Amino acid sequence: MNIGILGTGGVGQTIAAKLADIGHAVMIGTRDVSATLANTTADRYGNPPFGAWLQAHNTIRLGTFAETAAFGEVLFNATVGFGSIPALEAAGESNLAGKILIDISNPLDFSQGMPPSLFVSNTDSLAEQIQRRFPSAKVVKTLNTLTAPLMVNPAVLADGDHDLFVSGNDAGAKAAVIGYLRDWFGWKRITDLGDITTARGTEMLLPIWIRLMGTLGTGMFNFKIVR
Amino acid sequence: MNIGILGTGGVGQTIAAKLADIGHAVMIGTRDVSATLANTTADRYGNPPFGAWLQAHNTIRLGTFAETAAFGEVLFNATVGFGSIPALEAAGESNLAGKILIDISNPLDFSQGMPPSLFVSNTDSLAEQIQRRFPSAKVVKTLNTLTAPLMVNPAVLADGDHDLFVSGNDAGAKAAVIGYLRDWFGWKRITDLGDITTARGTEMLLPIWIRLMGTLGTGMFNFKIVR
Repeated sequence: MNIGILGTGGVGQTIAAKLADIGHAVMIGTRDVSATLANTTADRYGNPPFGAWLQAHNTIRLGTFAETAAFGEVLFNATVGFGSIPALEAAGESNLAGKILIDISNPLDFSQGMPPSLFVSNTDSLAEQIQRRFPSAKVVKTLNTLTAPLMVNPAVLADGDHDLFVSGNDAGAKAAVIGYLRDWFGWKRITDLGDITTARGTEMLLPIWIRLMGTLGTGMFNFKIVR
Repeated sequence: MNIGILGTGGVGQTIAAKLADIGHAVMIGTRDVSATLANTTADRYGNPPFGAWLQAHNTIRLGTFAETAAFGEVLFNATVGFGSIPALEAAGESNLAGKILIDISNPLDFSQGMPPSLFVSNTDSLAEQIQRRFPSAKVVKTLNTLTAPLMVNPAVLADGDHDLFVSGNDAGAKAAVIGYLRDWFGWKRITDLGDITTARGTEMLLPIWIRLMGTLGTGMFNFKIVR
């Protein structure tokens, strides 16, 4: 399948590499292609510059947000929260229309330092903002409650015996995404929380997630719902 | 130990009954003793009126918030979120001074119907509001992420293999509470998230908790942190 991934950070790279590995045609999108390629410094986490990553994943194409959204039959939003709506506006509503948009973003606000707060929460969510702004896209919120390596490889932790959540208004899109998550990444435990307003709940998991990362000293953990 | 429990609802009753069962001297506190006893109707969940419950637990004393706070060497706040600060004000700061106050409340706002929103969240929490208003109390937030029967009997679910969190500014008070949770209720997995600001994280679990209760059709579940 042709898959478009908006965002060239760690999450976008991880999703893109996994999908390319399993044989999909992948384009990864950025605001400014030449600026993204011109950056030759490692990021703040010590990851290599994007150009080096792209050379190591040479089946993956790089494009603008609009080119990437036009290319993909299914799209991922892997941009940072503050950048999500601007990135999708640059992608262009007509390139999103009728397509599944898998939204991994979180509304984290680091402007006051650590720990971040959420710039939207409680009575609204970033997923809802995206769905309202682009009503013809089929937004499905998922994967936003995990560190990137676990998103695409849940089996490395307790053989995948932990939980993932999906939220969205379009039942067919959610069913398709649940299938993708199983087939592409190996997710076994996926709970459909309900419509897109239930994304408030998963976005509001971030504050405890961040505290647990500090306490545990690793992001390689996940929540399991024990019944 | 003499233990005071503020709040005569389902959570307060459950905690009080368990502590009385294991031999503690328990007083349960309410705003208006005669009004609480005069209520002869079942609550909206079908639970019997408070007077009937009290007759069935005849070692438990009923008092005002102030009497209960004065009686308890350790106190539980099991009032509804909107009522917590008024209840503690009625209890009286001098009756709270220097004592451990185990805060189970959640800032749920049902005024706009279901699902509730939180009346404080993100950059503040109800636990912080309580700690700021009563600086001489040693507030430890815990148990607020569970349905009442699980609070006092975690072993009924997966033999207790699921997680509880504590937040608070006083290290000695947290250590004592962790001991109580183990000894009184049988909790095995307790994570100290950090200072009282980390209660934002556990209070912000409520939105997904409520959605999961709807999806699963039961409140008898809990989160386990899988590493």
